[in-house]
Amino acid sequence: MKAGPSQEEIRRHNLGTLLRHVHIDGALSRAVLADRMGLNRSTILGLVSDLASAGLVREELPRDTGRAGRPSLVVRSEHDRAYVLAFDVGVDRLTAARVGLGGVFLDRREAALSAGHRGVGEVTEVLAGFAGELTDSARPGTVCVGVGAAVRGLVREPDGLVRAAFHFDWEDEEFGEDLTRRLDLGLPVAVGNEASLGALAEHLRGAGTGCQELLYLHGDIGIGGGVISGGRLLGGDAGYGGEVGHLVVNPRGGRPCGCGARGCLEAEAGERALLEGARRDPSATGREAVRAVVEAADRGDIAARAALHDVGDWLGIGVASLVNVLNPRTVVFGGTLREVFLGAAAQIRSRINTHALTPAREHLRLRVGELGDNAALIGAAELAFSRILDGPLEALAHAGPTPEPRGRR
Amino acid sequence: MKAGPSQEEIRRHNLGTLLRHVHIDGALSRAVLADRMGLNRSTILGLVSDLASAGLVREELPRDTGRAGRPSLVVRSEHDRAYVLAFDVGVDRLTAARVGLGGVFLDRREAALSAGHRGVGEVTEVLAGFAGELTDSARPGTVCVGVGAAVRGLVREPDGLVRAAFHFDWEDEEFGEDLTRRLDLGLPVAVGNEASLGALAEHLRGAGTGCQELLYLHGDIGIGGGVISGGRLLGGDAGYGGEVGHLVVNPRGGRPCGCGARGCLEAEAGERALLEGARRDPSATGREAVRAVVEAADRGDIAARAALHDVGDWLGIGVASLVNVLNPRTVVFGGTLREVFLGAAAQIRSRINTHALTPAREHLRLRVGELGDNAALIGAAELAFSRILDGPLEALAHAGPTPEPRGRR
Repeated sequence: MKAGPSQEEIRRHNLGTLLRHVHIDGALSRAVLADRMGLNRSTILGLVSDLASAGLVREELPRDTGRAGRPSLVVRSEHDRAYVLAFDVGVDRLTAARVGLGGVFLDRREAALSAGHRGVGEVTEVLAGFAGELTDSARPGTVCVGVGAAVRGLVREPDGLVRAAFHFDWEDEEFGEDLTRRLDLGLPVAVGNEASLGALAEHLRGAGTGCQELLYLHGDIGIGGGVISGGRLLGGDAGYGGEVGHLVVNPRGGRPCGCGARGCLEAEAGERALLEGARRDPSATGREAVRAVVEAADRGDIAARAALHDVGDWLGIGVASLVNVLNPRTVVFGGTLREVFLGAAAQIRSRINTHALTPAREHLRLRVGELGDNAALIGAAELAFSRILDGPLEALAHAGPTPEPRGRR
Repeated sequence: MKAGPSQEEIRRHNLGTLLRHVHIDGALSRAVLADRMGLNRSTILGLVSDLASAGLVREELPRDTGRAGRPSLVVRSEHDRAYVLAFDVGVDRLTAARVGLGGVFLDRREAALSAGHRGVGEVTEVLAGFAGELTDSARPGTVCVGVGAAVRGLVREPDGLVRAAFHFDWEDEEFGEDLTRRLDLGLPVAVGNEASLGALAEHLRGAGTGCQELLYLHGDIGIGGGVISGGRLLGGDAGYGGEVGHLVVNPRGGRPCGCGARGCLEAEAGERALLEGARRDPSATGREAVRAVVEAADRGDIAARAALHDVGDWLGIGVASLVNVLNPRTVVFGGTLREVFLGAAAQIRSRINTHALTPAREHLRLRVGELGDNAALIGAAELAFSRILDGPLEALAHAGPTPEPRGRR
């Protein structure tokens, strides 16, 4: 038991907060940091000095101030001292990256994922192989401080059990534990739903930067989503929050959905509905297929126009419902919903105007994702950075010495 | 600028936190408080002593420990030193209460509100009259530390402008400012949406006690709602969050809604839909009318059964959508939805089972509200208590000396 937070706890918190500011916002002067954190400059100086000694930040001249006179130094995160590993288990590809502080992609691996090879064991084996290559390529003296992974399924907090991934036929798979074991880095793999992590990424580094109330919708073979409320990811009771693809928009006579129900937003406005409506081959999914429908609609193809109109209708109705319940400031359309939004914005807006309450929608911004196919991977990296941003020096100490590259062992 | 929180800030925070514990949970021993707050016993002793000197808590023997031996003293809030005024602008009545720390109702006023007298000026005049009577009846030495009001409309944060109250024909009404002016207590009136405040009340003192992820649905002439996420009320960008009555469940061919759209949950599952479906006089709304339909359905009245079945269907579909998006632990049915839930629970559950994802619903609890028609009033009181729970001694100092009852001036 203790009498309030100790000096040490306050210092750890302040170190983490300072590192978070430069990690997210890039180079910041000490004066700006002092102002943002409500601390005096000598305290900031001490914190910067500690982080610089640990190799996590450096001070340097700003790149271009645009002002005359001697510019102030800025504090910048060192992207080459502490890194995380981030993984994205996509519908048809596996991606891995080594990401440095500041969100800098240092190295990257990718492999196609064919339908017959989506077992958890096969997936984690490929990812572990990537991890070995990525850590081998790290400069000596750099350390891995976290691992994060995005999966297209319902992920239980806090243990990363994948309860259901409809498009993978996964059910209650111990993906997080399995990957942790295979990587053997002494760090637990933090697992999150891909659309929730996409929401986090667009909130921190994309179309929703600075916005504390954000709704993210992600389209690929299904429709996923993530809600940022009060600046935090809304996980709900066990981490399953944000499944906007299973908002019921057409319960009576709607299309069957992969989840077993009917009339879900995903069933009415997902890729399959669009491609079928446009009389395309519904098995040829993905961004190119969606883009082809949007382009055909632009050229006047009647089936494509009708399909895009319908999908825009359902999407607008779904977003309107969510605007009434969540009152977000920004809605971001990511994945293939980016293309759908660009092709059906008028229809989507019209439905929102009909169905969302005026006060709830009057300051609403509709945006397309800025991070493209990297959103989930960037979100996984941010999940992995949590530990070092909570206690920078402790995370470094825990990470221990840099392992020798495997070739030299 | 400062170097971290000062001792004074830490102490203020700790005083507020301790007061909040006994305010919400009733009598607690110092040992329990020390454990909950992570502070040592001598710090707790000092905090209790400060609060006791201010007259906000007292220490006493527990009422019944059920154990042999000398029992430990417990700390209890004094409900007669600091109070708040709480108002509820209901569909057909105005309610006001003087509420002491610990949520104790000390006094109460109520008046019917007829359709022709729902102007903001008329409403605030009645409420100000109640406030005068309630403060006059307060014991000398007690002080008013906050005022809160619940209204059936979309309330803008933080200024309490009522943007729209469909059932009152209010639009952009400065209700909060008007009431603040009329009360002239030197305290701003904090205004909230009635269902959001009902959610807060059921979360703190009702069916959702201890639950950090709660969805509350409130039925009266419409359907309102409130979402507790991470233990906090989800307000969204401007405070309009939680409007679950305008979730779109039947967009194609649905019933017209008061908001101007079609197929909202409120239109399909609200009182009017139930009464019309049961072939009752739809103008005779309210709890008795709803209860009569449920009882008629119980007796086998075919129209009543069909109406209750339909309403249960839509309600279940709406809740399923919300479960997928929010992953709440508990759903609470309040207002007249209490009666609807009791009459249609099987139908509601069946639709949730069909439309909500298994992981999101497997630990879901469906409950009826425990606070009845007082939910919004209790929530308004809790809103008004925020200030004293943030800084107890500062709030008392700000409240100043007890005003003399008006009769004695």
